[in-house]
Amino acid sequence: MNSIHRALVALLFAVAFTSSVSAQGDQPVDDWEPASTNQPGSEFPKVNSEGRVMFRIKAPLAKTVSCSFRGSNEFKKDEEGVWTGFTRPLDEGFHYYTISIDGAEVPDPGSKYFFGAMRWGSGVEVPAHDRDFYAVKQTPHGQLREVLFYSESTKTTRRAFVYTPPGYEQSTEKRYPVLYLQHGWGENEYGWGVQGHANLIMDNLMAEGKARPFIIVMTYGMTNEVRFGGLSSFSIEPFETVLVDELIPFIDANFRTLTDQPNRAMAGLSMGGMETRLITLRNLDTFSHIGLFSGGSISMEDVQNTEEFKEKVKLVFVSYGSREIDGGRTRRGGDPKAHVEALKQAGVNSVFYVSPDTAHEWLTWRRSLREFAPLLFVNQTGASE
Amino acid sequence: MNSIHRALVALLFAVAFTSSVSAQGDQPVDDWEPASTNQPGSEFPKVNSEGRVMFRIKAPLAKTVSCSFRGSNEFKKDEEGVWTGFTRPLDEGFHYYTISIDGAEVPDPGSKYFFGAMRWGSGVEVPAHDRDFYAVKQTPHGQLREVLFYSESTKTTRRAFVYTPPGYEQSTEKRYPVLYLQHGWGENEYGWGVQGHANLIMDNLMAEGKARPFIIVMTYGMTNEVRFGGLSSFSIEPFETVLVDELIPFIDANFRTLTDQPNRAMAGLSMGGMETRLITLRNLDTFSHIGLFSGGSISMEDVQNTEEFKEKVKLVFVSYGSREIDGGRTRRGGDPKAHVEALKQAGVNSVFYVSPDTAHEWLTWRRSLREFAPLLFVNQTGASE
Repeated sequence: MNSIHRALVALLFAVAFTSSVSAQGDQPVDDWEPASTNQPGSEFPKVNSEGRVMFRIKAPLAKTVSCSFRGSNEFKKDEEGVWTGFTRPLDEGFHYYTISIDGAEVPDPGSKYFFGAMRWGSGVEVPAHDRDFYAVKQTPHGQLREVLFYSESTKTTRRAFVYTPPGYEQSTEKRYPVLYLQHGWGENEYGWGVQGHANLIMDNLMAEGKARPFIIVMTYGMTNEVRFGGLSSFSIEPFETVLVDELIPFIDANFRTLTDQPNRAMAGLSMGGMETRLITLRNLDTFSHIGLFSGGSISMEDVQNTEEFKEKVKLVFVSYGSREIDGGRTRRGGDPKAHVEALKQAGVNSVFYVSPDTAHEWLTWRRSLREFAPLLFVNQTGASE
Repeated sequence: MNSIHRALVALLFAVAFTSSVSAQGDQPVDDWEPASTNQPGSEFPKVNSEGRVMFRIKAPLAKTVSCSFRGSNEFKKDEEGVWTGFTRPLDEGFHYYTISIDGAEVPDPGSKYFFGAMRWGSGVEVPAHDRDFYAVKQTPHGQLREVLFYSESTKTTRRAFVYTPPGYEQSTEKRYPVLYLQHGWGENEYGWGVQGHANLIMDNLMAEGKARPFIIVMTYGMTNEVRFGGLSSFSIEPFETVLVDELIPFIDANFRTLTDQPNRAMAGLSMGGMETRLITLRNLDTFSHIGLFSGGSISMEDVQNTEEFKEKVKLVFVSYGSREIDGGRTRRGGDPKAHVEALKQAGVNSVFYVSPDTAHEWLTWRRSLREFAPLLFVNQTGASE
């Protein structure tokens, strides 16, 4: 898995150093509003129309306070010991961060906490102009269910979140297709249901008649030890076993699923995309639809090396944020767009999607799910209705 | 509602100043283990067999670091800028806390985060000798479902968590009784399912045949503005409307519930107990079983002032932590034990439970649920099976 390791490390660095120069000295637009990701009642952090984030931390005895967004201005302390600072304009969408107080890296007490970068910590939402597609609306809502399942291969009881669509509880005879949906490196099974808003995206798509109802299953994809550096020993087999041999049978036994290959999809973001590619190519009797969000692509070599690929695969969906790619090419030199074109030429139903003005971040992945979901299970007999 | 306000403030102060003297200078037992409430991979905080908690925070430039547990020793900094300190022996169970770094009150980056004291922040579990009753076991597990419902009275979409018992998904004809279960002041709808382990307590009780299967519904009980000091304007009516007129019909429409009065219970801890008392006494056509955990009791005056109390109420359960009461009396002068005795004398099915060696804290309430659940819905026809 060394190539995966290298690619991921490269990705992480690309993300870390992608953005523009310091805004030091700029005068920010004075239309600050509390972030939607704040703790109940917290005024700070605030966000303005430029996408800057302003932090306020009371630390009367501190010598230095800062945040983890590069290019932020220097935090200043007032006479009451309250430190204030703000960032450069950030991309629309969701960003993880930390606050540093005299060298201690801590969560911001003003924000809610999210799991990313291997820890529960602060996150902030810069409102996206198209945020309506994951807004809470007065439409029927699905349920997001926390379930526990026993995994014999790891000898652990593991958690999964299962989204059941609106109507699932009422139509007690109906069976549904299933999408297995994976988080990225350093994230966990909470990601898609919390900062990803997968449930709201699906609620809204279904309310508008844009997607067929299906179940989504999200579980933890890093079966190796949870340690910094654990990626260097990453291998797909332990997670493949948990997902294919343990979780899928559990889901099929405990939910009203359609259990045949045409009605099962897998997708993932970043590392979850790489997992999806590896697992689906090895299990095409299990999965028919494949989604890779900022997580590689499927080449003609993959097609040629995989028995009955063209017969079994109903969809290959590949997406990236526009800031991750240059033309169709990723910064590391791969060319997912060309791969998708080649698949199309070969008669494979393939789609390439680019999220405008976003990088390797959650707004890219929320939009990817919005684009991917309507393409799923559209020609299956027996599926829903 | 001024009397509720005064009582709650008194309770909070009683909790804050209940415990014993400083352990400054004591030599702790050197059998420290990472707390079960830690972030994945975090070594600190650690807990020892005395119930002390040891913190470690890297803050090289800080002048002073401390924790919010009174009676903790002074934190010391090593040559690498890492601060270490430990608490006095704490009660078994769960405790909220904060870390102070040069006057900034922040979450501990080593812990997971829990909602209490009006914010998402750090918590630590001191292993209880009887923790087996909420351990994760290889038994059938229920599901903990996040649901969204629209509330006309508040014009908001609100969250509830719904625990469905093992077997609910398989027995698609069966209908279940429902317990509405409330958190305390400064907490929210996550409390019972996260730090309360209500799902695991129920899974284990049912696996041992000690409780009948029922649904539990948990929603946010502070309908007033979420602000510090908001309690002074607290009134029961807004929440009563959300619970009785909006949530109950939603649950009955979306889950396979038994919808008659004998199959509906309400319980709550602390402020949630006071809400339970107020709401059930005004709605005895809706609720038949009442549970008050560290949250007051029902007097003979209540019985006399409430029409058909004796005919309609099937159970009054009252509990406290032993450190909250003196004999049967609470520190504020009430006597819940005497109230329960009077109810028994009057022919009302009543139970008084005291949790050994705990105060106004989650171990008291976990144990209260363990004692309360087996008493619910035991004589109802039509309930389950």
